[in-house]
Amino acid sequence: MTIVTDAKNGKITEEMKIVAKEEGKDPEFIRRGIAAGRIVIPMTPYRDIRICGIGEGLRTKVNASIGASSDIVDEEMEVKKAKAAEAAGADTLMELGTGGDFLGIRKKVCDAISLPVGSVPLYQAFITAAKRDGSIVHMTEDDLWHATEEQAKLGTNFMAIHTGINNIVLDRLKAHGRFGGLCSRGGAFMSTWMLHNQKENPLFADFDYLCEILKEHEVTLSTGNGMRAGAIHDATDRAQIQELIINSECAQKAHDKYDLQVIVEGPGHVPLDEVEMNVKLMKSMSGGKPFYMLGPLVSDIGAGRDHIVTAIGAATSAAAGCDFLCYVTPAEHLALPNLEDVVEGVKTSRIAAHVGDMVKNKESRNWDLAMGRARRDLDWEKMFGLCLDEELAREIRSSRAPEDEDACTMCGDFCALKIVNKSYNLAK
Amino acid sequence: MTIVTDAKNGKITEEMKIVAKEEGKDPEFIRRGIAAGRIVIPMTPYRDIRICGIGEGLRTKVNASIGASSDIVDEEMEVKKAKAAEAAGADTLMELGTGGDFLGIRKKVCDAISLPVGSVPLYQAFITAAKRDGSIVHMTEDDLWHATEEQAKLGTNFMAIHTGINNIVLDRLKAHGRFGGLCSRGGAFMSTWMLHNQKENPLFADFDYLCEILKEHEVTLSTGNGMRAGAIHDATDRAQIQELIINSECAQKAHDKYDLQVIVEGPGHVPLDEVEMNVKLMKSMSGGKPFYMLGPLVSDIGAGRDHIVTAIGAATSAAAGCDFLCYVTPAEHLALPNLEDVVEGVKTSRIAAHVGDMVKNKESRNWDLAMGRARRDLDWEKMFGLCLDEELAREIRSSRAPEDEDACTMCGDFCALKIVNKSYNLAK
Repeated sequence: MTIVTDAKNGKITEEMKIVAKEEGKDPEFIRRGIAAGRIVIPMTPYRDIRICGIGEGLRTKVNASIGASSDIVDEEMEVKKAKAAEAAGADTLMELGTGGDFLGIRKKVCDAISLPVGSVPLYQAFITAAKRDGSIVHMTEDDLWHATEEQAKLGTNFMAIHTGINNIVLDRLKAHGRFGGLCSRGGAFMSTWMLHNQKENPLFADFDYLCEILKEHEVTLSTGNGMRAGAIHDATDRAQIQELIINSECAQKAHDKYDLQVIVEGPGHVPLDEVEMNVKLMKSMSGGKPFYMLGPLVSDIGAGRDHIVTAIGAATSAAAGCDFLCYVTPAEHLALPNLEDVVEGVKTSRIAAHVGDMVKNKESRNWDLAMGRARRDLDWEKMFGLCLDEELAREIRSSRAPEDEDACTMCGDFCALKIVNKSYNLAK
Repeated sequence: MTIVTDAKNGKITEEMKIVAKEEGKDPEFIRRGIAAGRIVIPMTPYRDIRICGIGEGLRTKVNASIGASSDIVDEEMEVKKAKAAEAAGADTLMELGTGGDFLGIRKKVCDAISLPVGSVPLYQAFITAAKRDGSIVHMTEDDLWHATEEQAKLGTNFMAIHTGINNIVLDRLKAHGRFGGLCSRGGAFMSTWMLHNQKENPLFADFDYLCEILKEHEVTLSTGNGMRAGAIHDATDRAQIQELIINSECAQKAHDKYDLQVIVEGPGHVPLDEVEMNVKLMKSMSGGKPFYMLGPLVSDIGAGRDHIVTAIGAATSAAAGCDFLCYVTPAEHLALPNLEDVVEGVKTSRIAAHVGDMVKNKESRNWDLAMGRARRDLDWEKMFGLCLDEELAREIRSSRAPEDEDACTMCGDFCALKIVNKSYNLAK
């Protein structure tokens, strides 16, 4: 019994009601979405969380990822970053740490926030093997199942699991080659393991067993995008699309046979003119599953401002139907994000999500309408209250010494709005 | 005789050759573009500048606007901002100051940089009248012509001139109303003047005389977008499109009859799903004139990060065929931009311009390809050299203390690229 079973049986659960209320939808709309696999509400029996729906017809959601790899981990800082991400408006948090006592840290992070938490259990499996036997190639199937169970019991709501990297996909990858290689850590681990051991990916070969574990712990499956391009020139190549096909088959089986909630992950680095196509292709392949886009970064040359590069792709992606955006921070491609980077990443993704929502659902524009009117009326307190980042807006206004108490920016004494408001009445 | 006359006569000038070389085009391509009005090279006989082509088939260009309105102006800071904009990669600079000795400041700015400079002469005309006679409504036609000539002689390369706000447009504006009013200072000044004096806009009524002045001083006409929306809900309304029609007629006359170079200005605040349409509409109305987009801002709620809101719109706009982007800084809607805001605005617009160019001209992606390969090879010096903002990228990498000398970001010891590079050869 999962929430999908309930939904298929026509039962509206408490979680569905909460999401319906938050999104201004009918509970029946949510139930149908979950029954059909178009909506998920990542659950866990092990932890109380803020209920959050992801999928078609709902507001675009934002994920923040944190986690350090080195064994010298500042545990307190990880908790601080998680809290900062929640405060900045993230809807979910992925904790991807693999350094130090990473399970202990994850526990602390889960305790510190109320967001649904995601993880990538195969990191644990591979790193356990590397530490135990000297190389990731010595990972065993049991390492995978053990990591999945252990992390589920920590109260993990959704897991990125690389089910789609099978031998068919690797053949495509080898034949096609790559300009930028592989940028997915899970993809790199698993494909290396498969090549070395000449074995099929256990997450694909034993997919039914994986589903049973996930079902037992009510974990939402997020099919990992191990073949995503890490360079614009590899975008939408045959390896990526082959993996999408396999992932979509897995997603269907997980939902139809095991009543699992499923998200499908997507790229990556994608040029602007391929973003919409990627969203539509994914929706078509997967039968409308919630789409979780990692970025996308629409250029490779913006390091230092890759959150902005991503905002362009993410807004376009959300407008085209993407449901769930993974943030990218200013530190992307350069270093681990610090606390400020995490906040900047979340706030920037929130802008992209809203811009996408303005296209998906015109009612989202009421927020903009209220701001437009407040600006027309030069009502500064109202404007600040309507800003996505009120604190930042107030700080800029006070630190940049505006020329006029009323005026908005460049015009000073000759503010266009003041002049027109006095001249004639256009207001509506 | 202007460069358009030369182009129409089949003559390839020195400026055309420079632009051709910079853009990797045949000089004949540039000549034909100028003859047909699809390309401009903003000129001035009064000042040596870096030659810059704007229009169809060329790289997307970025303008930075500076200028204070208050009479307490920090002249040195204005010059610093202009130099910073040039250093950050702006292609042109608009100096919009109306405070203090604004002509003196403009002269200093023009002397300090080699960029083509733009201005809005009607500000001077209206503010002269306000200071002289107590109100902008007392502006005379001669104030307009005088300001235009005086600013042309300072070495101004292009001027935003609000030719399109005529009585037909104001009727549309009054009938339609506005949620957010008017945000264009020129639009507010001129429409107020017209309503008060019950007279037609002299820039429209005496358009031929205006063209003669511009021709004498070889100024490029940028038809101003006084009716642009300052709020998402006013985007693409009847007043804006009516003004575009009138501006397009003026643009055609200026080019066909007076051999002027002409740019057409566009909005403003535009929701993401109307950006491409606005570009295509403008190109269709104007017969393919270079399109200069002010933003566009795709949401109203992002104050403090409106450079990011704009990057989303500007990239989409450039991809759809927009030729020239006016930057927006983090201070937009809040205060005058400081030095850091100017740099951030330019760098962000450069990202948007490149993302658009990647769609307009696939060869632009070679830059991304080089970066993709440098990343695959973990060649950090090459990566830094390829960054749009090398300084920022180096600063982030050194200040955020990466976990591993080779590794790029989150993976540390378990860097995906390192693992895959060792495992098998995918490189192409």
